[in-house]
Amino acid sequence: MFNKNSSVKSIFIVSVAFLVSSYEAAFAASDTAIMQLVPVVADKQGPVLPIQHWQTQNGASVYFVPEHQLPILDIEVLFNAGSAQEGANFGLANFTNSMIGQGARDLTADQIANRFDSLGAQFAASSGRDMAQISLRSLTEPTVLDQSLQTFTQVITQPNFATNSFGRVKNQLLQALLQEQQTPSDIADNAFYSAVYGNYPYGHSPLGTSAKIKRFTPNSLIAFYRKFYVGSNATVSIVGDISQEQAVNIAKQIVGGLPTGTSAPSLTNATYAPKEKNITIPYPSTQTFIRIGQLGISRTDPNYFPLYVGNYVLGGGVLVSRLFKEVRDQRGLTYNVTSYFIPMKTDGPFIASLQSRTSKSTEAIQVTQQVIQSFIDKGPTQAELDAAKQNIIGGFPLLLNSNAGIVDLVAMLGFYKLPLNYLDTYRTNIAAVTQSQIKEAFSKQLDPKNMVVVAVGANNGA
Amino acid sequence: MFNKNSSVKSIFIVSVAFLVSSYEAAFAASDTAIMQLVPVVADKQGPVLPIQHWQTQNGASVYFVPEHQLPILDIEVLFNAGSAQEGANFGLANFTNSMIGQGARDLTADQIANRFDSLGAQFAASSGRDMAQISLRSLTEPTVLDQSLQTFTQVITQPNFATNSFGRVKNQLLQALLQEQQTPSDIADNAFYSAVYGNYPYGHSPLGTSAKIKRFTPNSLIAFYRKFYVGSNATVSIVGDISQEQAVNIAKQIVGGLPTGTSAPSLTNATYAPKEKNITIPYPSTQTFIRIGQLGISRTDPNYFPLYVGNYVLGGGVLVSRLFKEVRDQRGLTYNVTSYFIPMKTDGPFIASLQSRTSKSTEAIQVTQQVIQSFIDKGPTQAELDAAKQNIIGGFPLLLNSNAGIVDLVAMLGFYKLPLNYLDTYRTNIAAVTQSQIKEAFSKQLDPKNMVVVAVGANNGA
Repeated sequence: MFNKNSSVKSIFIVSVAFLVSSYEAAFAASDTAIMQLVPVVADKQGPVLPIQHWQTQNGASVYFVPEHQLPILDIEVLFNAGSAQEGANFGLANFTNSMIGQGARDLTADQIANRFDSLGAQFAASSGRDMAQISLRSLTEPTVLDQSLQTFTQVITQPNFATNSFGRVKNQLLQALLQEQQTPSDIADNAFYSAVYGNYPYGHSPLGTSAKIKRFTPNSLIAFYRKFYVGSNATVSIVGDISQEQAVNIAKQIVGGLPTGTSAPSLTNATYAPKEKNITIPYPSTQTFIRIGQLGISRTDPNYFPLYVGNYVLGGGVLVSRLFKEVRDQRGLTYNVTSYFIPMKTDGPFIASLQSRTSKSTEAIQVTQQVIQSFIDKGPTQAELDAAKQNIIGGFPLLLNSNAGIVDLVAMLGFYKLPLNYLDTYRTNIAAVTQSQIKEAFSKQLDPKNMVVVAVGANNGA
Repeated sequence: MFNKNSSVKSIFIVSVAFLVSSYEAAFAASDTAIMQLVPVVADKQGPVLPIQHWQTQNGASVYFVPEHQLPILDIEVLFNAGSAQEGANFGLANFTNSMIGQGARDLTADQIANRFDSLGAQFAASSGRDMAQISLRSLTEPTVLDQSLQTFTQVITQPNFATNSFGRVKNQLLQALLQEQQTPSDIADNAFYSAVYGNYPYGHSPLGTSAKIKRFTPNSLIAFYRKFYVGSNATVSIVGDISQEQAVNIAKQIVGGLPTGTSAPSLTNATYAPKEKNITIPYPSTQTFIRIGQLGISRTDPNYFPLYVGNYVLGGGVLVSRLFKEVRDQRGLTYNVTSYFIPMKTDGPFIASLQSRTSKSTEAIQVTQQVIQSFIDKGPTQAELDAAKQNIIGGFPLLLNSNAGIVDLVAMLGFYKLPLNYLDTYRTNIAAVTQSQIKEAFSKQLDPKNMVVVAVGANNGA
């Protein structure tokens, strides 16, 4: 009835406003600062998480981790149905996913929201370039869980794409698009992706364009839904206070009613050949929003660990990274600056991101490029490398500290088809990274002279 | 570690981006469309909610509603410590509230977040013009609840305003401010409040100004915290699966450690004398964001019910209001248009809100004003009035359908010192509203010829 806190909370959504879904960013964005120093230890014997894995009859991959400390259950259903799968129908994937939960079978959007609300359950749907995501958190008290799952199942398997919901969501999307087009950080992100990827499926905003959104009909969405929301295109992750037998039944219940279908086609590899490297977009602001970067890596890149640890030193570690120290602390050119790889199904981008007073933006860009170049040339110091490893390894248990964190991790592993022992070997893999591996991986991967530089906010192209 | 969905969800925060906290907007913003037709019935005998009310020894008002259907507990702690209480220190109230949960006693922000996460508990803090709000949802399983409450208590009573959290939050606020200053809907809202309220405490954005934010020190915040985060300035609402004895102990635990202090001074009444009535702010967009309105009513205004029901007909009812039908359906001048009173401690505003293609914005403003004028002149038809009552009364049970909804309602009642039987008489009060009461109340309250009109987006002042 009234959306609690939504207006006020939006204050804190500012800092990281990239339109990628959470798993695309997991392990990618800069870590929060974990200051406690934890010794670099070998992984304990036995698996970090007892992940159980199977397939449903209609081809969905299921991952289950029993967690009995709290009487709650978290479920993530992912479909390989992000905007990378929509072809020229820009915005169709996100529009389709936005209708999930907005009407199912004979239930209206209000009725669905009220059912979840009255059960104390949390439902969410969202989508990005790689994936469409539908999630539920419910209490495990049997009556409550039964009702939550019943509604969740209907929402996933029987969306009704009702006309009035369709119109309302369309208007919301058009307004969101308008806001995106007028928000300088979004303008910068979209220009960056467009320059780096061109016509490749990652090149456009998942929101699409207003012309396309206006032209879609409920039937456009239904066709996309029928093709991509199918068993063989689904990954289901379940974490919580239930038995494996229950998990098997729940997975069968929530996605078993979908046709088997076929899994989404693999994307070809992206090539990096931007037509324009220096993109200046005038915007009437005193701050300039800057993105510097190029093509990065896929989630399964063999150099993932050297690049991840190295980037922690370069621009990932909050307050302690080279970029932060040099561009902010030494020069005072920005409030914050970060760099990250976003590993995706195919090569995601490498991005250094900052904003600066417009009068200082040219200098801020130059210094950022110099810091990147110097890092590639010389690599991290041994002290920097040790500190980075300690921070990443020390922070690892925090990733597993909550059911919500675990379901995120497991879903990411499943969706990107990483090995089931990925978490078991994670700390060992981090600890094994050497200075020379980082230097080599960065030299191979990045070329500061060949990066796209987007600046939004510079007056009159200055 | 990675903020799940935050980027993607922000898509849907677009539509109502007014920086007021939720209770200020409760019962004020347009209802979601509740289409089922429910007969107008007299209230059942007995209270709608068994609200229990008492005061702690240090003067906090406590409201408790037992709800045993789900093993969860919702707590809302409100302080009369919104931006209206910060004097010329624009942004101080919000900055202070933003530090709640960002460090307490010897806990860092990360540690607090991880504690709540690992307990499956949800913590939030936010603030608006009237109030600062701190909330918790926890499972009631004894060990979990004990730990949740222990951390919640520390967060409320022992914030540490640590230097590194202070710097981080300051940067987030500066970025949020920057975003606000570059988001046309926010620009429109702030210009509207500024014009309607001038130097009155509601006239400025709760976010404040960057000059002020930069000048605050941890000590500025500590002084504000010590003055306003005290027992006699607190309202505590508790809803969930506990006994009254537990509720008494919980209230004592979480705010009993605060000094009694003194309650915040009452605001004088606002006067309406805008210096400028037509405010055009150039903005490089194809859409113009429009706000039309003037001074409205306080939460305890005797004309609340006629104005609320009348506004449902005028611009509150989604898809069915006069403004929606006329400005959108008949003329195609906008995607959406709404009107609402925001009743506050003193007179909040009346606002009609829409956006329009810039080339049509002058026409959109004229038609909106005509619809308001016509509604004041003629009032609602009997059919419109009946439909509005049915919708509002039919939707009433949905407000009580979840613990989260109940705690919102109870907190609103407590903070604005409405009678404890407010909900018991609510439907009767709605049902009793007549056409002539609405006509009279609107004529007394509103004067379309004397309204502030803000248009953000018009090119070169066109």
